[in-house]
Amino acid sequence: MTLELVSKTQCFDGSQCQYTHRSEVLDCEMRFSIFLPSQAEKEQRFPVLYWLSGLTCTDENFSQKAGAQRMAAELGIVLVIPDTSPRGDSVPDNESYDLGKGAGYYVNATQTPWKSHYQMYDYLVKELPELVEDTFPVSDRRAISGHSMGGHGALTIALKNPGRYISVSAFSPICNPMACPWGEKALAAYLGPDKTLWEEYDATVLLSRSTERLPILISQGEADQFLEEQLKPNALKAAAEAAGYPLKLEFHAGYDHSYYFIATFIEQHLRFHADYLLHID
Amino acid sequence: MTLELVSKTQCFDGSQCQYTHRSEVLDCEMRFSIFLPSQAEKEQRFPVLYWLSGLTCTDENFSQKAGAQRMAAELGIVLVIPDTSPRGDSVPDNESYDLGKGAGYYVNATQTPWKSHYQMYDYLVKELPELVEDTFPVSDRRAISGHSMGGHGALTIALKNPGRYISVSAFSPICNPMACPWGEKALAAYLGPDKTLWEEYDATVLLSRSTERLPILISQGEADQFLEEQLKPNALKAAAEAAGYPLKLEFHAGYDHSYYFIATFIEQHLRFHADYLLHID
Repeated sequence: MTLELVSKTQCFDGSQCQYTHRSEVLDCEMRFSIFLPSQAEKEQRFPVLYWLSGLTCTDENFSQKAGAQRMAAELGIVLVIPDTSPRGDSVPDNESYDLGKGAGYYVNATQTPWKSHYQMYDYLVKELPELVEDTFPVSDRRAISGHSMGGHGALTIALKNPGRYISVSAFSPICNPMACPWGEKALAAYLGPDKTLWEEYDATVLLSRSTERLPILISQGEADQFLEEQLKPNALKAAAEAAGYPLKLEFHAGYDHSYYFIATFIEQHLRFHADYLLHID
Repeated sequence: MTLELVSKTQCFDGSQCQYTHRSEVLDCEMRFSIFLPSQAEKEQRFPVLYWLSGLTCTDENFSQKAGAQRMAAELGIVLVIPDTSPRGDSVPDNESYDLGKGAGYYVNATQTPWKSHYQMYDYLVKELPELVEDTFPVSDRRAISGHSMGGHGALTIALKNPGRYISVSAFSPICNPMACPWGEKALAAYLGPDKTLWEEYDATVLLSRSTERLPILISQGEADQFLEEQLKPNALKAAAEAAGYPLKLEFHAGYDHSYYFIATFIEQHLRFHADYLLHID
């Protein structure tokens, strides 16, 4: 697999880069962004935080708006920021913003027309990390985070792969997609009508069944316009309480669903991950 | 003059807001963004940094990408981020990105069809500050900064108004617009062919004639794709040296013309302005 460098610029004390590559899993060309602290240009290998973005985003939203590079450079963490769906003229799409391109939901689709390309779960769990770990000076110490649909992706991917991620966090995640309009629409389209199959991609269900105890941090703005109808953090909280799972869920007055919220608390999230990623037993 | 609140959200320790208002000077409705540190909600009055953006930008680019709110909240500085040109269906435009809407160049146009609306200099020096100072808990202690075309705007506006601004800074400014393609095109269109009139909006010319000694900080990326052809910081440096003007001009290896550069050094610029804005004799 070959990577093509699209752009590279200095950002804080490191390099902000974009690459394209052919994805076999998604059967299309994909782009991702990566931030490499300048210390990562030496021989040591650094841990990686994967960031999964929300509906309509590409690899650029988090890269340009969160300001995460400042702390990532200071802490010595590589940031990998993938796209949110397969891309290209041959990839099926839908006219709505919450299905198709920009809305892959980090699942493996089983339904026509989506199944030919929409295998974002396998792309993120297998193909992309292999590529990153073969190419860049990174270790196999991984953390994962994301926003909204990407928060759902981070939580479900971490919960489904015990031992693969050291810590997980999310901003304003879709916590219970089986029980909200965004999730019902996407899961029905990508997975079909059998709701027992949806459970495999629902953080609230997965957490209630989990035996691993991952460090989880979730931040939620109280002025978030999607809080009540779509995000449902209290469903996840109830599942965690029932299971005795030590979930750290923090509400913040006045913050909405935007990147202004992420920019404000990304330092806290990076320090949270660093506590686990950089701790060597 | 009445302001209409478009949006308001918490960002770091303060409020990020957008307002619209009718501009008499520009004869159209204008939008601007303002960041108010939470401390500014008390009775004290806080200094203001005006930020002028570059070609194609609105009030949102700096607001979303620079991460300036973190330090502004900490230092107690209000940020005012205007648009880069008059807006609306009745405002003349040009098909190119570097003339017309999004490219007001912070001048008072004298030529048809521009002169009816393109009076950005008066808007920024008079109308907008009056509105801001009448409405928000701000003092008359002002600083000004900007990027590229906005760096040109910040430098020229500060140099043309002795005593009005306490400090000025710029990222990657167009330092000598009379002698670069961007500036030649815009100044000819807005001001006509008489180049002696262009001198009133050329930072290199204005600095060489200035008697005031303002604190000026300029940051320039060495990997900036526009450095040689358009920006010409060394022309400004030569003028400063000839005039004995204490210009602080810093070059940074590896940084390009993007907001990644601004995000990296905005803390330094805000601390530079704070040294003067918050210093009470």
